[in-house]
Amino acid sequence: MTRHYNFCAGPAALPAAVLERARSELLDYQGRGLSVMEMSHRSDEFVAIAERAETDLRTLLNIPSNYKVLFLQGGASMQFAMLPMNLLGGGGSANFIQTGIWGKKALSEAKHLGYRCHLAASSEASGNTAVPALDALAISNDAAYLHYTSNETIGGLKFDYTPVVKRDDGSDVPLVCDMSSNILSGPINVSDFGVIYAGAQKNIGPAGLTLVIVRDDLLGKTVPGAPSLFDYQLLAEAGSMVNTPPTYAWYLAGLVFQWLQNDMGGLSAMDALNQRKADKLYAAIDASAFYSNPIARANRSRMNVPFVLADAALDNVFLQEADEAGLLNLKGHRSVGGMRASLYNAVPEEAVDALIAFMADFEQRRG
Amino acid sequence: MTRHYNFCAGPAALPAAVLERARSELLDYQGRGLSVMEMSHRSDEFVAIAERAETDLRTLLNIPSNYKVLFLQGGASMQFAMLPMNLLGGGGSANFIQTGIWGKKALSEAKHLGYRCHLAASSEASGNTAVPALDALAISNDAAYLHYTSNETIGGLKFDYTPVVKRDDGSDVPLVCDMSSNILSGPINVSDFGVIYAGAQKNIGPAGLTLVIVRDDLLGKTVPGAPSLFDYQLLAEAGSMVNTPPTYAWYLAGLVFQWLQNDMGGLSAMDALNQRKADKLYAAIDASAFYSNPIARANRSRMNVPFVLADAALDNVFLQEADEAGLLNLKGHRSVGGMRASLYNAVPEEAVDALIAFMADFEQRRG
Repeated sequence: MTRHYNFCAGPAALPAAVLERARSELLDYQGRGLSVMEMSHRSDEFVAIAERAETDLRTLLNIPSNYKVLFLQGGASMQFAMLPMNLLGGGGSANFIQTGIWGKKALSEAKHLGYRCHLAASSEASGNTAVPALDALAISNDAAYLHYTSNETIGGLKFDYTPVVKRDDGSDVPLVCDMSSNILSGPINVSDFGVIYAGAQKNIGPAGLTLVIVRDDLLGKTVPGAPSLFDYQLLAEAGSMVNTPPTYAWYLAGLVFQWLQNDMGGLSAMDALNQRKADKLYAAIDASAFYSNPIARANRSRMNVPFVLADAALDNVFLQEADEAGLLNLKGHRSVGGMRASLYNAVPEEAVDALIAFMADFEQRRG
Repeated sequence: MTRHYNFCAGPAALPAAVLERARSELLDYQGRGLSVMEMSHRSDEFVAIAERAETDLRTLLNIPSNYKVLFLQGGASMQFAMLPMNLLGGGGSANFIQTGIWGKKALSEAKHLGYRCHLAASSEASGNTAVPALDALAISNDAAYLHYTSNETIGGLKFDYTPVVKRDDGSDVPLVCDMSSNILSGPINVSDFGVIYAGAQKNIGPAGLTLVIVRDDLLGKTVPGAPSLFDYQLLAEAGSMVNTPPTYAWYLAGLVFQWLQNDMGGLSAMDALNQRKADKLYAAIDASAFYSNPIARANRSRMNVPFVLADAALDNVFLQEADEAGLLNLKGHRSVGGMRASLYNAVPEEAVDALIAFMADFEQRRG
């Protein structure tokens, strides 16, 4: 068996320790004589797995008790529809900060559904290379919530602040954040947010699971005619088991949470490690005349590092040689081209070191 | 490692051969140095896995080329909302045959969403012990489709015919079937149906994957304001990859399809095996004065066999002794009580033999 270094943007690398644990109990979970995949979601065994995952996540992120944690399906893109349907039942508009492709899709879906939308700020005109400043946000007075994307996976752009805002009358605007590509990369202050959500397939677990963390007072405001399975309140009351949840993905997410806490030392330690990994890769890019990254330093993503070669004609040979060297999935998103190295939690520092060494060698030979 | 016999109604038993194959390549898929879970859904490797799964399913079910196959999330319950939103854009009403809890939920969700619904027939008054006869179906003249549940998982009731119907003017009514608990248990004539759908967690694979087989001419009739991820046409155009699909569940479903074709001899062979398994269990129940099943013989499910003990006070000791004998998850659904043995494809004939032997022994000792 060989394990290569996997820089995929998602579905992404999972910790080898988690995969090994999953493998060891794939056919027989703790002597029960069946796989976790084969258990009723209402069995004592699975309920214990599900509850432990939630408890461990609450510990990792220090989630206050007035927040519900939901384990859902459909990906972050399904949340683009579920969010306005859950939060606009009391009227008002959805406000958006747009800093890249995912934030744009979130706005586009809310518009498609016919909801009133307001663009509070956008960095599109400047090519999404820096996030708007807090004082540049123009929140509408009827804002029911403000949505933003804390880390744009494709652009490699991250917020370096939390855009907590108020309406002109001084009232708080619930902050809704798509954290798909940087959740669990370090500590956050959950109390700043009304809703945090994330597709699992970057820092949580396999694709097919979506995490939603929602503040109690935002429940029960669903618009009429929303699908029952979209209703956060119903989902929360049923412990995310209105119908059968994605049990195996939930179990694997739980193993990732245990790995983060027990093997990696929790999110402060992950934060330092992720900073170190990103810093050394950006330093290598900046020190080179051959590689470049266009993002403002303060907004450079620690999770997704896009870079281009001075000569795009070398892209394919770069990718092929990287692949042969065991450095997988470095191709940039088709909408932007170039390269992208995703450095999620499960990508070890050795992988970053190996990538930097390969890049230096490639530049020397081909640059 | 021990593998017990698992009679769970879902998530349900998976073939040991499939789990063993998954285990062998869990950390390294065919020498590529990463898990299937860690692959981009747009990578050559995963696209090949996804396409092979669809091709194998098309072969197994003999799906005509004018049907699209979708691999989705959300379970059959999400389809309860997606179906009317996809099929009622041209007007008309949703017609339903109700033979148990799942058919009732499908109707209830369409009503909840505000769509015109018509109950074409129901077996509720008679306790859902037999399905309505074809000539008892009262289809409305504005019927956009007729929905039914070919096998009610909780009641253990199956249709012994396919309710192909016409409107008074002779035009066809698209037939929509929830086959969650009996798909792939034997051959079907796909051309009889407009839409076939099924949650994966019984006969297809792990929870978190939903299969939809939809006829071409039913695409593009989505109601205004439906979520983009609900739109069968958009999903079909994107090969079920509008956003990241549940890749690992899709891969496992593909392994199940290969097992059905290569190890089990296809669906005609499965059909005979499933008939034999069910026949012998019902024969044992009928021959006993201690166990009983209330369903009309022609409508007895081959997949889910509910039965009660003559003395309900013995239920708990029956379940406990069964569990100790390695016969797991025989408890009936909480809404009906008693016992239920689910005999899906992955439950081997030896499991049924062991259950029958245990039941006879229990009756002798305790009956």
